[in-house]
Amino acid sequence: MIDLKGLSAFPITPSDRDGRVDVGALRALLDPLIAAKVDSIGLLGSTGSYPYLARDERRRAVQTAVRLAEGTTPILVGIGALRTDEAVRLAQDARDAGAAAGLLAPVSYTPLTDDEVFEHFQTVARESGLPICIYDNPGTTHFRFTPALIGRLSRVDGIVAVKSPALDASALAGHVAELRAVVPSGFSLGYSADWNCTEALLAGAEIWYSVLAGIFPKVCLEIVRAAASGNAAEARRLNARLQPIWDLFKTFSSLRVVYAIANLRGICAAEPPRPILPLPADAQKRVADTLAGMQIELG
Amino acid sequence: MIDLKGLSAFPITPSDRDGRVDVGALRALLDPLIAAKVDSIGLLGSTGSYPYLARDERRRAVQTAVRLAEGTTPILVGIGALRTDEAVRLAQDARDAGAAAGLLAPVSYTPLTDDEVFEHFQTVARESGLPICIYDNPGTTHFRFTPALIGRLSRVDGIVAVKSPALDASALAGHVAELRAVVPSGFSLGYSADWNCTEALLAGAEIWYSVLAGIFPKVCLEIVRAAASGNAAEARRLNARLQPIWDLFKTFSSLRVVYAIANLRGICAAEPPRPILPLPADAQKRVADTLAGMQIELG
Repeated sequence: MIDLKGLSAFPITPSDRDGRVDVGALRALLDPLIAAKVDSIGLLGSTGSYPYLARDERRRAVQTAVRLAEGTTPILVGIGALRTDEAVRLAQDARDAGAAAGLLAPVSYTPLTDDEVFEHFQTVARESGLPICIYDNPGTTHFRFTPALIGRLSRVDGIVAVKSPALDASALAGHVAELRAVVPSGFSLGYSADWNCTEALLAGAEIWYSVLAGIFPKVCLEIVRAAASGNAAEARRLNARLQPIWDLFKTFSSLRVVYAIANLRGICAAEPPRPILPLPADAQKRVADTLAGMQIELG
Repeated sequence: MIDLKGLSAFPITPSDRDGRVDVGALRALLDPLIAAKVDSIGLLGSTGSYPYLARDERRRAVQTAVRLAEGTTPILVGIGALRTDEAVRLAQDARDAGAAAGLLAPVSYTPLTDDEVFEHFQTVARESGLPICIYDNPGTTHFRFTPALIGRLSRVDGIVAVKSPALDASALAGHVAELRAVVPSGFSLGYSADWNCTEALLAGAEIWYSVLAGIFPKVCLEIVRAAASGNAAEARRLNARLQPIWDLFKTFSSLRVVYAIANLRGICAAEPPRPILPLPADAQKRVADTLAGMQIELG
């Protein structure tokens, strides 16, 4: 059974204008994450633009990552889709390719009811046998999970974790406690929205699902280790040094910023899938200036 | 050039569990709309579950409708997709099949900026040559069009109309005036959210994009004709009789309610695409009781 804890790094998925995944560029992004020993890789997350990629391309990306990780780094895979049958197929593909777990977001167009989301998740877990992490990302899905629904889902066979958005640092301790009260022992609680995730770890979350770790794993691992060893002051000090990057994420969106960083660093020459556009030139310059002005080793 | 005015009827698209369109059932839904002489049919709208259907199925649905309409009723077609290149292909398919216009919503997962939506729309209009109606549906896309962006888009070659949500009856006159001030003469303004659309027509909108008309065209045509002839009192009287249906739409969502109505009336035996579920039994009974209790001919 996959044990979801520590740091999960969410890289972009470089693809060309036609939506074909650039496997070489993906390897160049994944290699440093595996070398840095992140606890898992969140492939085809929202940052990995999963909903914009066709089934075959998603399968190629998973196969590439699993082969590269050689069993040392668990690969979590975004398996969300608008249709339940499509999400089942994507989960089966990920399972067959050797993924450790599926990240399932309630992707929607017609707004969904709680019962619809419950059925959707239960069907995907049952039909795939892949361990499922509930991917709660209201900024993209516009679905709001209540603790009651998380509690119901946490009792479904094969649903093992939830990735919640750390939208408000001051509310995190309460949110962790609220979820802990409704899920079984061993169910993993984790957070995304990087700028608040140090506080989430200090509030008792087991795992940080990190966009920044998809490009700069080491600085994020230092924070996770400080938090795990109970050194809250050190975790907060390390996190505070990243504030200029958190400001970029909040201003321009983390997805667009990490594309710019990957290109600036020469790791790949990729653009997000259209209609998402690369950052305009002035914003790219601000990203470059911010990175150049930081006093720390970001690798 | 298509002249978007009057009543546009938005039917469901019956499909099976695997997402295959039931062409026979679709014909059974479309025939009465054409016979009633609605001004256009909005095929594959949100009610027609377009984002849940594959490209081939969407093409089959358009071909079916165009053949059935035999040039008498213009067919508007939902061509929205997450990827710009996919929306271009869908617009080209619709054009090749004989659609009169494309309904383009800014379907999104990663939230889009105004410039991204502008580029997306411009590209689809340019690459397809299909007249485009801006499909503004924040309840499903979560994108908010400003009047300024509608104004910019209305000056792009081939973008001819906007379908706005009539979310607040008291704000409609102001909204119509605000849009009219930024779009060129001849640009069509229309509304959806049936329960407020009588007021939208009375406020000067040219067209009502109607879910109810997709199953009960005649009662909606009576309202449109009363409004067009300047008889506001009659339009409002006719609309008021439909209040029990508007209440169902607001309580259970118009999409789920019209599926229930189509099944109750024996027009088809279809369920929405999963994860969307049919209404639970008690809600279906409430729909049946409401229809049975209405004192008017609904056909």
